[in-house]
Amino acid sequence: MAPPSHSASHLTNASAPNNCFTVDTPHCLLDPGEFRRQGHQIIDFMAGYYAHIEDYSVSPKVTPGFLRSRLPAAAPSQPEPDALAAALNDVRDLILPGITHWQSPRHFAHFPASSSAVGALGEALAAGLNVVPFTWTASPAATELEMVVVDWLGKALHLPETFLFAGGGGGTSCEAILCTLVAARDRKLAEVGEGRIGDLVVYCSDQTHFALHKAAHIAGIRKANCRVVPTRREEDSFALSPAALGAAMREDVDAGRVPLFLCATVGTTATAAVDPVAELCAAAAPHGVWVHVDAAYAGAAFICPEFRHLADGVRAADSVSTNPHKWLMANNDCCALWLKRPSALVAALGTDRDDVILRDAAADKDGDGAVDYKDWSVTLTRRFRALKVWLVLRCYGVEALRGAVHEHVRMAALLEEMVRADARFEVAAPRRFALVCFRLRPPEKFCGEKAAANELNRRLLEAVNATRRGPYMSSATVGSQYLLRCAVGSTLTEERHVRDAWKVVQDHGAALLREMHGTTPTPPQSVTI
Amino acid sequence: MAPPSHSASHLTNASAPNNCFTVDTPHCLLDPGEFRRQGHQIIDFMAGYYAHIEDYSVSPKVTPGFLRSRLPAAAPSQPEPDALAAALNDVRDLILPGITHWQSPRHFAHFPASSSAVGALGEALAAGLNVVPFTWTASPAATELEMVVVDWLGKALHLPETFLFAGGGGGTSCEAILCTLVAARDRKLAEVGEGRIGDLVVYCSDQTHFALHKAAHIAGIRKANCRVVPTRREEDSFALSPAALGAAMREDVDAGRVPLFLCATVGTTATAAVDPVAELCAAAAPHGVWVHVDAAYAGAAFICPEFRHLADGVRAADSVSTNPHKWLMANNDCCALWLKRPSALVAALGTDRDDVILRDAAADKDGDGAVDYKDWSVTLTRRFRALKVWLVLRCYGVEALRGAVHEHVRMAALLEEMVRADARFEVAAPRRFALVCFRLRPPEKFCGEKAAANELNRRLLEAVNATRRGPYMSSATVGSQYLLRCAVGSTLTEERHVRDAWKVVQDHGAALLREMHGTTPTPPQSVTI
Repeated sequence: MAPPSHSASHLTNASAPNNCFTVDTPHCLLDPGEFRRQGHQIIDFMAGYYAHIEDYSVSPKVTPGFLRSRLPAAAPSQPEPDALAAALNDVRDLILPGITHWQSPRHFAHFPASSSAVGALGEALAAGLNVVPFTWTASPAATELEMVVVDWLGKALHLPETFLFAGGGGGTSCEAILCTLVAARDRKLAEVGEGRIGDLVVYCSDQTHFALHKAAHIAGIRKANCRVVPTRREEDSFALSPAALGAAMREDVDAGRVPLFLCATVGTTATAAVDPVAELCAAAAPHGVWVHVDAAYAGAAFICPEFRHLADGVRAADSVSTNPHKWLMANNDCCALWLKRPSALVAALGTDRDDVILRDAAADKDGDGAVDYKDWSVTLTRRFRALKVWLVLRCYGVEALRGAVHEHVRMAALLEEMVRADARFEVAAPRRFALVCFRLRPPEKFCGEKAAANELNRRLLEAVNATRRGPYMSSATVGSQYLLRCAVGSTLTEERHVRDAWKVVQDHGAALLREMHGTTPTPPQSVTI
Repeated sequence: MAPPSHSASHLTNASAPNNCFTVDTPHCLLDPGEFRRQGHQIIDFMAGYYAHIEDYSVSPKVTPGFLRSRLPAAAPSQPEPDALAAALNDVRDLILPGITHWQSPRHFAHFPASSSAVGALGEALAAGLNVVPFTWTASPAATELEMVVVDWLGKALHLPETFLFAGGGGGTSCEAILCTLVAARDRKLAEVGEGRIGDLVVYCSDQTHFALHKAAHIAGIRKANCRVVPTRREEDSFALSPAALGAAMREDVDAGRVPLFLCATVGTTATAAVDPVAELCAAAAPHGVWVHVDAAYAGAAFICPEFRHLADGVRAADSVSTNPHKWLMANNDCCALWLKRPSALVAALGTDRDDVILRDAAADKDGDGAVDYKDWSVTLTRRFRALKVWLVLRCYGVEALRGAVHEHVRMAALLEEMVRADARFEVAAPRRFALVCFRLRPPEKFCGEKAAANELNRRLLEAVNATRRGPYMSSATVGSQYLLRCAVGSTLTEERHVRDAWKVVQDHGAALLREMHGTTPTPPQSVTI
């Protein structure tokens, strides 16, 4: 619970008691001079955080209730003197020791949530301008910048031109899977009749993110009609088989059900497996199924020439989405969606009601190409996210982002080599992108005992994550096998962090094996890569 | 299109060409020193914007395509030297002249999107920490601060204790109407059978925000089963009548349909009308209908003792939501939802699948009261919004927020008096909170001609909004009557802005009347308030 020892020095310039500013009317809350003073305070605080982020345990050692029990039960009536400095002291002493430090160079869990100076500051600028661009008129530049940026990003990621505004498609930032599923549902119900919602079937693999199931459930698709096609390690490396998909669809059709939607994944959550999108589209086409490609994590990699073929592969799909906040330095949150036929989205999510706010603010649609983004997403309220993505692309350039992805993949490949070079470990699924999945091999006497092997690796992860100033990784269970996941991709991660992380894994692995053997095993041949 | 004339001076410190920083590896993208330098640049830019915001036309004079045509078709490969300064010059020259300035003290359109220094900086801090608190474990302090802050806010707004964590309920920030509707749907389908989704009926008034219709549509409710109860100006001032609601529900039950969900509104979009929530709850109760109270705008006013009875009124409802970004200085976006029984939400939106990321990160649920907020909303990805709301409450205190709401209501009441004091105008709907709806009376010879009166007022709004450095208002059409809406609530609005705005309306109104009369009318008696 105690904050790192350096905190007293690196973050305390926040507490200089120089605030004699008082709020007596609302407009004081946005006084430019006070904003400037407080703004510099926040920036210095954040810069101090980044400079000392390695001092924090990536995952906090706290128990539920640790923070709630230390904060008052109600908001103060009146602020303290220099309340922002006091609040920042609380951030330093109470909150920072309690967050998971996703920006730590030792954060290898889940997928990255990458950050950059310009990404963070772009969010700050958007928050400060504080526009609500639900329609073109409600903030023209915000809408148009979003149109520009989705095309910029789509081009940088080598998406087929048909997904860009420039090619007759278009994109936005929204809840991609839910929105496209509702668009697909409406298109299909218009064809087969509104009453048949109970017959609609959604397809995915057993590796598809649960977001698909949640979206289907929200959209009124029966749970029994979510068809989960099993994947196999040996044959397909956990990718969805087009043959199995085709068979499932035929079976549904034969039973009188209506195939609706396929969520294919490029870069699954567990192992970053890649579904064969082109072949899946071919299998789905005879049934008029909407194919959405979820490339939440791996879409970022399309920026590199070596992964460009994956972008080509989505050519026959209806829609594709990725999260620039995961691996394109664009700070949480931003989900980018591209579609070939945005009109289907607007038909499902648009409103034709004569609403007060919308009549004033609706775009003049006379062929000018302006869009009202409220009709492209669930919520009316939206933020000016495009500003941050534009700043990131503009200020770093495509080459720097490509370089970052490339460097993370290089470091992951290095880790993979180190795993292969240590006979005590195995690479548990083919490395994809910058995700390495590995496990500790159990001692020979336990071979064939899956549960024991899984338990060994569960203990390994626990030990690794409990290491003081150690790496933080996560796990997956695929094909009943528990494996450790190391996702390289935090902005601050350098090769030394990856090497250090592997050393920690090796040390704990060795200790666990010693314990299992009851004797000290022969030290493995050490290989330096 | 041209930027305001001051722009060369107040925003150009951004262009000091002092950047010799280069990005050669990913970690340079988050270099603390460079972050500090760029951060101060952004803060100074924003402070300059606030200081000169009155120089901008609130609504930009641009046409669709104005920005897209001026930006390159693709992102740069390499950044320019000191790219952030160059980008900020583009923000100044291209983007600021093209946004609607929601923070302008002359923004009176729609509802406010209020901002504060600490609200904006709280967003910046959250963006910089860049955690993804989808579960308690994924960032414990972010989850716990959200739990603390929804209780703080609920108390400040005088919500019944049953809606707070402290009283057995709880809250979060999410897509409130959609999430509660799905929870209600699942609860009801469990009772009547999954196959009856086509029989479920949702209720609202003709003044309810279209968000309800969109949510119902997304959730698979038939369009024909969205029951829109008409309101009347004379009897109910556009509030939903409990008797009419009860009759509609009985009719549906008699026809074999299943009443599901009522969205009552406190502060409707058009006129800020207040539905009689307690009576509506009583009418809905016999049918087991989930009552959600949408107080998106007016919920902020519950903070004042004089509006506290409205908070008491939600006692019998199932859920209530408000947008602190509208009128509580918490910057876009933040929708706060409170429920008496969060378990219904979790049952609908939670996942029990054995997902990789979630198993590692799921909270230990053994009675510790920790929650996994991914199960309370549509998306898995979420931002650390609580930080900003906490900072606003902590740094300004409840009294200052109360004072701001109170002051805005006072200014709106003053405007209402000024409207009443000018015989050429009429107050078109009772003033509620800080929204004044008014219209220009047509000359006597047009009396009874609704269309002519509406056209007159449409032209009035057009003229007012086209005024150089004039106010920006919006309109509504209720009961076939077109009216102008003036929503006081921008943080920077002072009494002088309201008085100036009214003067602009009067001047344009007089000109239009002169034009209609064909003669100069007798000057009205001028009353200064």
